[in-house]
Amino acid sequence: MPKPRSFPALTLFVMATAGRNLTRTAYVAVLTGVVMMVLLTVDPAYEAAHHWVDAVLWACLSFFTFEWVVRLRHAFHARRIRTYALSGRGLLDAVSAIAIPLALILGFDPKTAWLLGIFWMFKVVPGIPGLRQLRRVLVLESGPLLSVLVLFLMVLFLASVVMYFLERDAQPMAFGSVPAALWWAVATLTTTGYGDVVPITPLGRLIAALVMICGLGVFGLWTGILATGFAAETRRDNFLRTWESVSKVPFFAALGPAAIADVTHMLRTMDLPARTMIIRKGQAGDCMYFIAAGEVEVDLPGKKVTLGEGAFFGEMALLGNNTRSANITTTRVSRLLVLDLVDFRLLMARHPDLGETIDAEAKRRALENK
Amino acid sequence: MPKPRSFPALTLFVMATAGRNLTRTAYVAVLTGVVMMVLLTVDPAYEAAHHWVDAVLWACLSFFTFEWVVRLRHAFHARRIRTYALSGRGLLDAVSAIAIPLALILGFDPKTAWLLGIFWMFKVVPGIPGLRQLRRVLVLESGPLLSVLVLFLMVLFLASVVMYFLERDAQPMAFGSVPAALWWAVATLTTTGYGDVVPITPLGRLIAALVMICGLGVFGLWTGILATGFAAETRRDNFLRTWESVSKVPFFAALGPAAIADVTHMLRTMDLPARTMIIRKGQAGDCMYFIAAGEVEVDLPGKKVTLGEGAFFGEMALLGNNTRSANITTTRVSRLLVLDLVDFRLLMARHPDLGETIDAEAKRRALENK
Amino acid sequence: MPKPRSFPALTLFVMATAGRNLTRTAYVAVLTGVVMMVLLTVDPAYEAAHHWVDAVLWACLSFFTFEWVVRLRHAFHARRIRTYALSGRGLLDAVSAIAIPLALILGFDPKTAWLLGIFWMFKVVPGIPGLRQLRRVLVLESGPLLSVLVLFLMVLFLASVVMYFLERDAQPMAFGSVPAALWWAVATLTTTGYGDVVPITPLGRLIAALVMICGLGVFGLWTGILATGFAAETRRDNFLRTWESVSKVPFFAALGPAAIADVTHMLRTMDLPARTMIIRKGQAGDCMYFIAAGEVEVDLPGKKVTLGEGAFFGEMALLGNNTRSANITTTRVSRLLVLDLVDFRLLMARHPDLGETIDAEAKRRALENK
Amino acid sequence: MPKPRSFPALTLFVMATAGRNLTRTAYVAVLTGVVMMVLLTVDPAYEAAHHWVDAVLWACLSFFTFEWVVRLRHAFHARRIRTYALSGRGLLDAVSAIAIPLALILGFDPKTAWLLGIFWMFKVVPGIPGLRQLRRVLVLESGPLLSVLVLFLMVLFLASVVMYFLERDAQPMAFGSVPAALWWAVATLTTTGYGDVVPITPLGRLIAALVMICGLGVFGLWTGILATGFAAETRRDNFLRTWESVSKVPFFAALGPAAIADVTHMLRTMDLPARTMIIRKGQAGDCMYFIAAGEVEVDLPGKKVTLGEGAFFGEMALLGNNTRSANITTTRVSRLLVLDLVDFRLLMARHPDLGETIDAEAKRRALENK
Repeated sequence: MPKPRSFPALTLFVMATAGRNLTRTAYVAVLTGVVMMVLLTVDPAYEAAHHWVDAVLWACLSFFTFEWVVRLRHAFHARRIRTYALSGRGLLDAVSAIAIPLALILGFDPKTAWLLGIFWMFKVVPGIPGLRQLRRVLVLESGPLLSVLVLFLMVLFLASVVMYFLERDAQPMAFGSVPAALWWAVATLTTTGYGDVVPITPLGRLIAALVMICGLGVFGLWTGILATGFAAETRRDNFLRTWESVSKVPFFAALGPAAIADVTHMLRTMDLPARTMIIRKGQAGDCMYFIAAGEVEVDLPGKKVTLGEGAFFGEMALLGNNTRSANITTTRVSRLLVLDLVDFRLLMARHPDLGETIDAEAKRRALENK
Repeated sequence: MPKPRSFPALTLFVMATAGRNLTRTAYVAVLTGVVMMVLLTVDPAYEAAHHWVDAVLWACLSFFTFEWVVRLRHAFHARRIRTYALSGRGLLDAVSAIAIPLALILGFDPKTAWLLGIFWMFKVVPGIPGLRQLRRVLVLESGPLLSVLVLFLMVLFLASVVMYFLERDAQPMAFGSVPAALWWAVATLTTTGYGDVVPITPLGRLIAALVMICGLGVFGLWTGILATGFAAETRRDNFLRTWESVSKVPFFAALGPAAIADVTHMLRTMDLPARTMIIRKGQAGDCMYFIAAGEVEVDLPGKKVTLGEGAFFGEMALLGNNTRSANITTTRVSRLLVLDLVDFRLLMARHPDLGETIDAEAKRRALENK
Repeated sequence: MPKPRSFPALTLFVMATAGRNLTRTAYVAVLTGVVMMVLLTVDPAYEAAHHWVDAVLWACLSFFTFEWVVRLRHAFHARRIRTYALSGRGLLDAVSAIAIPLALILGFDPKTAWLLGIFWMFKVVPGIPGLRQLRRVLVLESGPLLSVLVLFLMVLFLASVVMYFLERDAQPMAFGSVPAALWWAVATLTTTGYGDVVPITPLGRLIAALVMICGLGVFGLWTGILATGFAAETRRDNFLRTWESVSKVPFFAALGPAAIADVTHMLRTMDLPARTMIIRKGQAGDCMYFIAAGEVEVDLPGKKVTLGEGAFFGEMALLGNNTRSANITTTRVSRLLVLDLVDFRLLMARHPDLGETIDAEAKRRALENK
Repeated sequence: MPKPRSFPALTLFVMATAGRNLTRTAYVAVLTGVVMMVLLTVDPAYEAAHHWVDAVLWACLSFFTFEWVVRLRHAFHARRIRTYALSGRGLLDAVSAIAIPLALILGFDPKTAWLLGIFWMFKVVPGIPGLRQLRRVLVLESGPLLSVLVLFLMVLFLASVVMYFLERDAQPMAFGSVPAALWWAVATLTTTGYGDVVPITPLGRLIAALVMICGLGVFGLWTGILATGFAAETRRDNFLRTWESVSKVPFFAALGPAAIADVTHMLRTMDLPARTMIIRKGQAGDCMYFIAAGEVEVDLPGKKVTLGEGAFFGEMALLGNNTRSANITTTRVSRLLVLDLVDFRLLMARHPDLGETIDAEAKRRALENK
């Protein structure tokens, strides 16, 4: 987020526009810009409202140009303008701001020039949540994935050459050259099957059938590799994320890392929106909750108690009392760690002191709530 | 299930119709209703039997209206009519009952109005068996799934804009606007490949090939994520199932749940075919066995003893006597739980009463076998 | 395999035909019969060689009739004709024998009657190797699979009704009734995408895009469930199969079942054809082999030694001597159990007596080969 | 790589051409050759530059012929020309060199003869990185994969025969014979869906819908099997990799490989983010840590000590002193190997020298930190 020092007017404008939330504004601008760019190409829609469309497109462009200038200026003050300008992010910002005006100046048709607005879309990339994880899987499994790709290409070329040989006389238009046959092969091997080019000789159809079955095989290999990669990555990722959450709960901080690792393996992370009822009075309960982030409200008879980060609740369900004794609701977006009855028993067996702490706290709270 | 208190005639009717099985009747009504709604749109079929079709449709509608009224009434008596009426279930019941008559009253064509009968189908949702597990997986994996969806949309838009640029001159009808190109892109990226719109320029075909391969990739990612989610969910289920196996062994039932969780993690499950020798006389032993399912035969001198589900054997090996004293064989496919010497000592240290029980039983058996 | 007692002529004929291998003959007959049945429908091919085709078809039919009669007779002698005749196998045999003659007698066109020969194909089913495993997975995962199927059907019907509503005016032929729309929906949701029926209204295309994406999702769920099921089943199956092989090796029989389970987890099963070189003299070795079934020949200087079921070889590689000292070849189809260097070290650490036995045997053999 | 002894001119030429990198040159030649072969079939491109295309093709062919001759000569000098010439590699080299000239001599059209250049592509196969792993998976899972293939073929034939029966009267061209119906069936069952042949009768469409759904099922089974195979293969790879991590710890390097395998199974790998507190001063400790990668900082009174890859800490907890004596934090993303107290004792019992080394190091460090 830019923190320009001597740029008051612009800063004020940014604040006014974006309400301290430049990123969110940028997302809205990207969405609006791309939709307008799409509309620009639809003749009836554009003719009906071209003033609006043009105005919004120019506004988006201005916003991205302004964003780029602010970032450049901030980087200049932080003496790392070179780093920023040559980074992927910096280049994307530059292209988002300059490409369209440049194309217009170079005399391109406006409808073509504005198509470059598709680059705006990439500004969203850093905000995609699981992307880092996805990329990691692709990197880790790049070896087998590439070898499947090479196999894919080899089958593709082989099929094309064989098909060109078999079908060129029967269909000189569709299979008149190997590139033409490649077009057929790629549509077939990916099981897309447009049907615009189809073999008609019996031998050609036999080869086509084999190519389709190979397509299934390639697909299966690809998926198998990715599934395996995901399983490994998910295991690793979950562990790290929960570990971080667990170590924030003061309750577990007292335990050693071996025990924390133990707990980490057992807790499930649960992200809840604000004003969600977690526990309903009178329900049967089978788990307890730790608050990793956020806040909950316990609706006790006569008063409301607020529990914040690090607190826990629902522990009576694990200590023998199955019926929930109060409604508990989140007051804002919260991350809870859920400990199931089954896992709790295991944990108690391994770390008796944990049980004692929970017990003591439960007694204290029961006394307090009287 | 409604339990109306002062609604005798209707209740009797429900009983008569549904034989105490309102849910099953509702399923039949849903199936019949949807089939009839489909038939209504097939002109020859409808013309041949429109009296029947209409009659059945009205009967289904009556049933659903009646069901809604019974439920409303029951909820009213239980003083939670508001909760019911505004719940998903209540709204669905209301729409199932009211939407079609309302559409007919508003002057819609009957064929159109009855199409709303498709909402009846959703009444089946709560009865789908694995749905809870499915939803759990989707919720747990929503992060990566969403990021794949965003990637999918980005590839979609990028491909459409590039394709629009490349093909608009060659095929002004099919690729005349970005939305038109989007239609091609979605059919290609999902590898559906209708073939109604197909690129014809060489560069367009190259891009199309890339889009198809991306389609395979998206597919693979999606499947990989879901497979991982399912595996995790299944593991959790399995732990609970082994827990159940363990708690069936009378021996462990005496222990507290904390110890059972402990034991569950220590026992190895072993599925054996029939007529397999588990213990050979004179061998050195280092583990004991619990029978979770199946049956084994102990070949004692002079007689054969059969042990069934819940029994255990080989315990002497853990109590100091290393040499096995009899051949023991499975008589049918059996599931045994194996407890190793190392784990056993750990377990004894933690749960001394377990050791005592094993000791007592062993003495009793030694006496008995004399 | 039938063992008729007083049916010498037929028995002799079977022996002559099938060389004590009725099953293999049946497979050949099924293959030939189905190919001929296919040829029958190809007019030019049939016209060119209809005498041959007819003759072979009748021969196949005779064979299956004969097989059925032999089986019936055998079952009659064993006093379980009723059980056989009403079993799946018996009914299939009956249909294979009777259906075509019956159809011909009832006056069906020969080309149509012979199509019933497709039932012969099912005779192969019991011989498919992994089918039992496949069925087990499908049974174990039937819950989630069914719920995906129900979801699939619900999306299918919903999409059809919406599409019928949106497209019926624009394309009265293709979307003129819900069943017609269903045809489009199933081709789209499975991402087959024939392209014979395609939405043309903008809203229709939007819905179609959603249906395609749902198709990917259904696909992913399905695969995810099956992948999980397979992983579990494979684990279980491999364990049982290797266990059986291991317990045949006399070497391991001395160990207790806990140790056998240990070994079972470590050994890889390897099926080799006859006359395959397993170890080449001078090669670096990193594993030893146990013979679970079959026979190998060790090509020592000056003499050839044969090792049979239960023997082991290549153990020097694990005991420090990396270079193989002789060529070793299978003499017939063999199943070997491979123990890798890594796993071997682990095993030795856990079961020192195993190491001693191997050591003693290795010394004895070294002495003997001098 | 050939090392010809008395072939100086050629050797010099190879060195000059390939810069000691014959393999890379061969890859470039394969790529160039295949591209040129493709260009040869594109009439406009070939007419524009046929001199160039021809020249490059002949150059590639010369290179492969030369490569083959060099290899043959080298094999001859090594007295294993027979082995090489009849190996897969040798045959491929021979075909790459001879096939095209032979076809030209036999009077084939040059465009057809050069198509044989597609065989050059297979020279790349040994260089594909993950291929060995891929083949391993395919071999290990060949059983279930084959049984799915058999199921696939059975559904294919059954669907074709049924379809031929249902559609032959309505579409005598498309479904006039079983082979024609097979063409439809394979395109449908693989969900390719060309749409050139489409059922039009209601019953035919119903069967087609079932075939499509079966297609999804086959796909899912296939993928599930492959995913399972990959997971197993990856697990095996991971064990080997942890083994490597362990053997990097100088501490364990002193142990024999049997003990290392033991340790590998006992250590838990733990990936930690930077700046995470691993040990808190005053806490009770029950495990020790080895640093496989990364760095930690020990916060001793008055000074900070940094421990890098291969170091260990927390060992006092295992040697009797339960209370941690210093805070220890990661300074960057680190991979630690955790050894629990229970496992440690087991390990000490089995490998007494390990205990001594830890003891010595602990004393040395305690002295140093005074």
